[in-house]
Amino acid sequence: MSPRSVAVVGAGLIGGSVARAAAEIGAQVTVADPDPAVRDKVAAAGIAAAVGADPREAVAGADLVVVAAPVPEVPAVLEAVAGACRADAAVTDVGSAKAEIVAAGQAALGGSFVGGHPMAGSERHGFGAARADLFRDASWVLTPTEATAVEAYAAVRRFVTSLGARPVALHPDVHDEIVARLSHLPQLAAAALVSVALDGAQEQEALLALAAGGFRDATRVAASRPDLWVGIVRFNRHAVVDALAQLGHEVDGLRRLVERERWDDLAGYLERARAARLERFAKPVAAGPPVALELVIPDRPGVLAQVTTAAGRLGVNIEDLRIVHAPELHRGRLDLVVSGDAAADALQAALEGLGYEVSVGEPW
Amino acid sequence: MSPRSVAVVGAGLIGGSVARAAAEIGAQVTVADPDPAVRDKVAAAGIAAAVGADPREAVAGADLVVVAAPVPEVPAVLEAVAGACRADAAVTDVGSAKAEIVAAGQAALGGSFVGGHPMAGSERHGFGAARADLFRDASWVLTPTEATAVEAYAAVRRFVTSLGARPVALHPDVHDEIVARLSHLPQLAAAALVSVALDGAQEQEALLALAAGGFRDATRVAASRPDLWVGIVRFNRHAVVDALAQLGHEVDGLRRLVERERWDDLAGYLERARAARLERFAKPVAAGPPVALELVIPDRPGVLAQVTTAAGRLGVNIEDLRIVHAPELHRGRLDLVVSGDAAADALQAALEGLGYEVSVGEPW
Repeated sequence: MSPRSVAVVGAGLIGGSVARAAAEIGAQVTVADPDPAVRDKVAAAGIAAAVGADPREAVAGADLVVVAAPVPEVPAVLEAVAGACRADAAVTDVGSAKAEIVAAGQAALGGSFVGGHPMAGSERHGFGAARADLFRDASWVLTPTEATAVEAYAAVRRFVTSLGARPVALHPDVHDEIVARLSHLPQLAAAALVSVALDGAQEQEALLALAAGGFRDATRVAASRPDLWVGIVRFNRHAVVDALAQLGHEVDGLRRLVERERWDDLAGYLERARAARLERFAKPVAAGPPVALELVIPDRPGVLAQVTTAAGRLGVNIEDLRIVHAPELHRGRLDLVVSGDAAADALQAALEGLGYEVSVGEPW
Repeated sequence: MSPRSVAVVGAGLIGGSVARAAAEIGAQVTVADPDPAVRDKVAAAGIAAAVGADPREAVAGADLVVVAAPVPEVPAVLEAVAGACRADAAVTDVGSAKAEIVAAGQAALGGSFVGGHPMAGSERHGFGAARADLFRDASWVLTPTEATAVEAYAAVRRFVTSLGARPVALHPDVHDEIVARLSHLPQLAAAALVSVALDGAQEQEALLALAAGGFRDATRVAASRPDLWVGIVRFNRHAVVDALAQLGHEVDGLRRLVERERWDDLAGYLERARAARLERFAKPVAAGPPVALELVIPDRPGVLAQVTTAAGRLGVNIEDLRIVHAPELHRGRLDLVVSGDAAADALQAALEGLGYEVSVGEPW
């Protein structure tokens, strides 16, 4: 069941697309944005029941709150809305770095905050580029931790699924390490490639127009807004430093291979990269019919993070999730749905290895 | 006037596209390829009057010979066809590195060899990916030198124009420096980015599927064939080493900015890259009506390289070119057509600065 009312704070590319997509699935949408020109565009789009400047007003009646402000502003927005939203509302964000934001969100909102990061977007920005189908078939990372309430997690998970995304649960630290390499590093590397091209051009600057498709592809993201990216890198600086150090190491290694004319080693290096690019970065696909797993669990929130992290490591996507409380026994049951017997078997084995009691059930 | 007969040696993506495009403009096409399976495909495509294994047979009657073998094989092919093609045939190649190939081509064929490099292609390979429109609006670099015959240059230039490409004349060394940064470096950097993603993944390898559009764009060329790229890098190793060293320097600089939390400097770096990516790597466009320049020239081939290099530095594209010999005077006239008065004025000034007598004429 999707939320009946969704508040979106920040109507840029991501927030605007969330608002459009939520309106399309029939939710009542309220939007807050600090920019009057953006508010005018949202109002003109006819997708929101209310559009205003104050996040606290926008979130007041919502079942679900999506904070889509630039990363450095997210903690302050979460603090501002904490006193204004309903006690049973689930609150999420869409920031590209998670550990600091999740800590801030849980300090402000407790278990009802669930960190999120849709792996979608482009070098375009702003409400004008927003599309209701931006998230279709995209991965959407959610980052539950020990402190996350299962009800809030399930509500956010259902919402992003209803937008067409594939939710993937990861620990915030794991997310930040992964996106440092898969997103933040390519962003910085694109700027570095442009800089090398410029420095090398000198008096042949006109010849930069010779850049062909390979260069254009490799540097497309360099057209993104610097202020947004600096904010993201600030919130993930340790992992980004590690990733840059590793890229520097790889580039040095390549330089030495070429200098020493070690052509077979260079061919091997390129072949490994080629095979990986073709095979390992494919989008996840549903592999088989739904299979349900039932776990007997102690009634504490840390279980969820442990389960979702185990699934993430196996590459098993949790398709659906619900919890059956039995508070009088101080335990309960967590029901999961995954795709295909192979995924179910792998996850069952991993969870049993972690000491859980797991059985196969009926998808609900 | 396009050549009546074109021989293509090597029917991969580029050679196959040349053959298809030449057939489309009405030339008689002969093709040589060492691979029987490729020959079958070319024969089945119905674009060639003859398809065989021996380059010497294919080139025997051709007005124009296009050698589209992998870069390391080009020198041997040029030597093989040198004794087999007509004395008045123009011979060109399509290799992605030029200085070594031009030296080999001129040793084998003298002034009738003109180095070439179409700035088109993709991570796809083989005759199956060949398209007659691959070169439409793409830049096609030609690399005349002191030793290049003007007639051969003009014939190759007209041919690539007839395929829809925009010829750009550059010195082979200038070409090699530029493509090291605009093409060979992005290729190697894509492999390095994939390697960093793989090394960082470790037990989270399944999470590589989270890679979003930015990573996919930045690493698309990593799917290219390693053997072809090793051959290209071998033939341009000095410029590639320089470019890799410069990229390493940029990446180190970025790492230090992030480590030291110098966010304003990082924003400035990204902003410069963004502005350049949006403005300076645009495709060249014709700017204005054709304007003809006439140069009185000493009757020696070095003039052509000097003129085309001057035009390349100014970003002025030579749209057409012909030479009027006056051997009895030991001098002649070189007629050039460029687009627009601004380009004509700039080139005239540069050529007068080099000591040439230049006047504005009528486009022919």
